[in-house]
Amino acid sequence: MNAEIIAVGSELLTAARIDTNSLYLTDQLNALGVELAGKSVIGDDRGRITACVAGALQRSEIVITTGGLGPTEDDLTREAVAAALGKRLVFRQELCDRIEALFQRMGRRMASINQRQAFVIEGAEALDNNNGTAPGLWVPTDGGKVVCLLPGPPRELQPMFEAECLPRLRQVVPPLAIRTLQFRVTGMAESDLDQLISPVYKRYENPVTTVLASPGDIQVHLRARCQTAAEADALLAEVGPQVEELLGDRIYSRNGSSLEETVGAMLLAAQATVAVAESCTGGLLAETITSVPGASHYFAGGFLVYAAEQKIKLLGVDPELIRQHSVVSEEVASAMAAAARERTGATYALSVTGEAGPESATGNPPGTVYLGLTGPTGTAVKRFQFLGDRQRVRLRAVRHALDLLRGALA
Amino acid sequence: MNAEIIAVGSELLTAARIDTNSLYLTDQLNALGVELAGKSVIGDDRGRITACVAGALQRSEIVITTGGLGPTEDDLTREAVAAALGKRLVFRQELCDRIEALFQRMGRRMASINQRQAFVIEGAEALDNNNGTAPGLWVPTDGGKVVCLLPGPPRELQPMFEAECLPRLRQVVPPLAIRTLQFRVTGMAESDLDQLISPVYKRYENPVTTVLASPGDIQVHLRARCQTAAEADALLAEVGPQVEELLGDRIYSRNGSSLEETVGAMLLAAQATVAVAESCTGGLLAETITSVPGASHYFAGGFLVYAAEQKIKLLGVDPELIRQHSVVSEEVASAMAAAARERTGATYALSVTGEAGPESATGNPPGTVYLGLTGPTGTAVKRFQFLGDRQRVRLRAVRHALDLLRGALA
Repeated sequence: MNAEIIAVGSELLTAARIDTNSLYLTDQLNALGVELAGKSVIGDDRGRITACVAGALQRSEIVITTGGLGPTEDDLTREAVAAALGKRLVFRQELCDRIEALFQRMGRRMASINQRQAFVIEGAEALDNNNGTAPGLWVPTDGGKVVCLLPGPPRELQPMFEAECLPRLRQVVPPLAIRTLQFRVTGMAESDLDQLISPVYKRYENPVTTVLASPGDIQVHLRARCQTAAEADALLAEVGPQVEELLGDRIYSRNGSSLEETVGAMLLAAQATVAVAESCTGGLLAETITSVPGASHYFAGGFLVYAAEQKIKLLGVDPELIRQHSVVSEEVASAMAAAARERTGATYALSVTGEAGPESATGNPPGTVYLGLTGPTGTAVKRFQFLGDRQRVRLRAVRHALDLLRGALA
Repeated sequence: MNAEIIAVGSELLTAARIDTNSLYLTDQLNALGVELAGKSVIGDDRGRITACVAGALQRSEIVITTGGLGPTEDDLTREAVAAALGKRLVFRQELCDRIEALFQRMGRRMASINQRQAFVIEGAEALDNNNGTAPGLWVPTDGGKVVCLLPGPPRELQPMFEAECLPRLRQVVPPLAIRTLQFRVTGMAESDLDQLISPVYKRYENPVTTVLASPGDIQVHLRARCQTAAEADALLAEVGPQVEELLGDRIYSRNGSSLEETVGAMLLAAQATVAVAESCTGGLLAETITSVPGASHYFAGGFLVYAAEQKIKLLGVDPELIRQHSVVSEEVASAMAAAARERTGATYALSVTGEAGPESATGNPPGTVYLGLTGPTGTAVKRFQFLGDRQRVRLRAVRHALDLLRGALA
C-alpha cells in the first residue's frame, strides 16, 4: 500500500524552512508497512493544492496533507481537498463550540474567522486536536481511498496522528510483517559495490535492497515485507548471506553502528587505546573518534601538526627526514605515528599527512594522503589519492584511517 | 518567473534522509528573482519521474531535477526526462572519455556501467562536473522552457550550479534588481536576536528579512527586489543601518564569510598565529580553523588532550592543579592554553575543557565548558553552560572559542 504526503504552506518554499513533518509521518507509515511513493511541498494556492491532491489520489491509496488548516484566508487545504474530491464543505456547530471552548480555556474570545475551522468536507470525520484550534479531517473517498488532513505544527500533528490516525489506518492497511538487514561498508566506491552485489539483489523484488553512500561510507539495506514474520525472515536468510559473502571483510557493521563506534567497541574489547597525529585532516580524525560517548576509555590524545615545523617541534620528527622525503611521504607518516604512540603511551597510533587542497605545497597532487598506523606488531603506511574538494579529501582520509585500525584490530 | 525542484531518489523517501539541495537551490533562484512554485521528492521510478517533470513543465518555466544521474540501473532521471520531453537519448563519446579520464586520475578503471553517464538528451548541453562522474544536463524545451538535471550530492551539485547553471539562467530570467545585505552574528540566541531586530524589520515588506540560525551562529539576510538597482540600494540603505546598530559588535561578518574565515583573515592581518589545546571538542576546534584554505599561515598546531592524564603527559599540566580544581575548571583551562602557547610558540592559544555529555565525569553538569585564551596581553577564561546533545555542545564551544579570539584581535 502506498501513501503520499503533501505539505502545504508558502513558508515551506523558502530557503530558510524545511518540511520535517514528512520524516515523522514516513517513519510511522513505514512501521505500518505503508510505503511512501512521493512527497511534495506547495504554496498556499487553492488550484495547485487541488491538482496535487487529485494527482496523488490517482497513484496512492493514502494521501496525507499537512498545514493550511488555520483560520486565515491563506489556509486553503479544506477547500482545495473538497474541490479535488468533488465534495461540499459543511458547517458543524459542535466543532465550532469546541473551538470556542478552547479559547475560553485560554482566557480569550474566539475571533469570528476561527469559524472557518468548523467546516468539514462532507462525509469526513473530524480529528480531535488537543494542542491547537484546527481539527484534522479523515476523508474516505468514493473510490475506497482516504485523504487525511493534518495541522502543520509538529506538536499538534504528532499527537493527532497517534491518537486519531493510527487506529483508523490500522483498519485500512493490511497487516504486514517487515524485517530488515543492514550492512555498513567502507573502503569501496559505490559503483564498485553496486557492480558487485547488484547481480544478487536484482534477482529479488522482495527484499528491497537500497544502497546509501556518503564519502567513504556505504550502507546496504535489505527490507523484506511479507504476510508473516517467518516469511520475511526466510527471505532475508536467503538473500542476506549472498550479499554478505560478496562484501566480505568490507562490512564493518551489521547492527547499524558507525565506523567510529565499531572501531571504538573493538578497542574497548581489546583493552587497547589509540593516539593520533593529524596534519591535513586538522583534527577531524580525533573529532570523529571522540564523537562517540565513552571514547575517553580508548582515545589516548594526540597532536595537531599542520605545518612541517610543528611536526618537528611537537612530535620530534627529524627535519632531515622531511627535507629528504617532503612532509607528504611514507617516511614522515611513519615517523609521525611512531612519535605519537611513544609520547602518549597508546597501544596504536594513526597518522595523517597529505595535501587536502585546493593547493599543494609539496608537489604531490591535491588529494594525496599518506595514512600511517603503528601498533604492537609494527608500522604500516598506505598512500591514497582522493578526489574532491578539501572537505571530501578529509572525510575520506578519516574513513580510511579508521578502517586501517579496524583491520589491525580484526 | 517560477521554478520547481524535483528531487529524485528512493532514499529521500525514507525517514532517515531529507532533501536539502532544494534549500540551496531556492536561495540561488530567489537571488535571481525566480520564485519557487513547488518542490517534490519522488522515488527511482521512471514513470513517476516522467509524470512529475511533465506536470511541473505545465506550471513553471524552470524545472530542476536533482539526483538519479549515477551509473546504476536505478538512476533513471535522464531516461525519464527524455520521455517527458518526447526526446531521444544520444551517446556522446567525448563525455565517456572525460569520465574515463577521471577514473584514471584516481588510479582506477572505469566500470562499464559508467558509460550510462555519457548519454544525453538530444538538444541538451552537458554541464561539467568537476567533483564526480555524472555530468549535468541543460535541456531547453520546444516550448521555450528549460529542464536542468543536476547530480544529487551537494558537493557536486553546488559547484555545477554556480559554474554552469547560473550563467545560463541569467540568459533566460528577466533582470530584476536584487540587492542583499547579510550580517553574520555569533554569541546570541536566535530568539533574543529576533526580539531585538523584529520591531525594525517587521515594518518593511521590502526588503524581506530572513533569520537563519544554526548552533552558535545566526545569519540575518535583507533582500530588496526592485525595478532598478538604485531603488533596491535605497531600501537597504534605509533598513540595513537600523539592524546593524542593534546588533553592534555581535556582527562578525558583513560579506558572508564564516567566523573561521573572519578570524583567519584577522590573524593574517595581525601576522599572528593560534594554537589549540582541546579536550571535550576532541579536534573540532582545530578542524574548523583548518577548514579554511591557507590556514597553515596562521594555525600553529595543537594538542588533543581528552583525558586528565593526557593533559599532564602532553601539556605538562600540574596534576595537583587538576586534583584541586578538577579537569573542568578555570585553572586547568588557563594552564592548558598557557602550555599550548609555550610549546608551539604561537601568538595566541585557545583551550577547551568541559563536559560534552551525555555523562559527566567531574560533577559539572553536561554542557559545562571552560574556554581559555592566552596571548601577548594575558589570559582570559570564560565558563559556559551549553544546552543540547554532545555534538551541539561541541559546536557551540567552537563558535564561542573563535569569538573569544575575534574579540582579542579586534
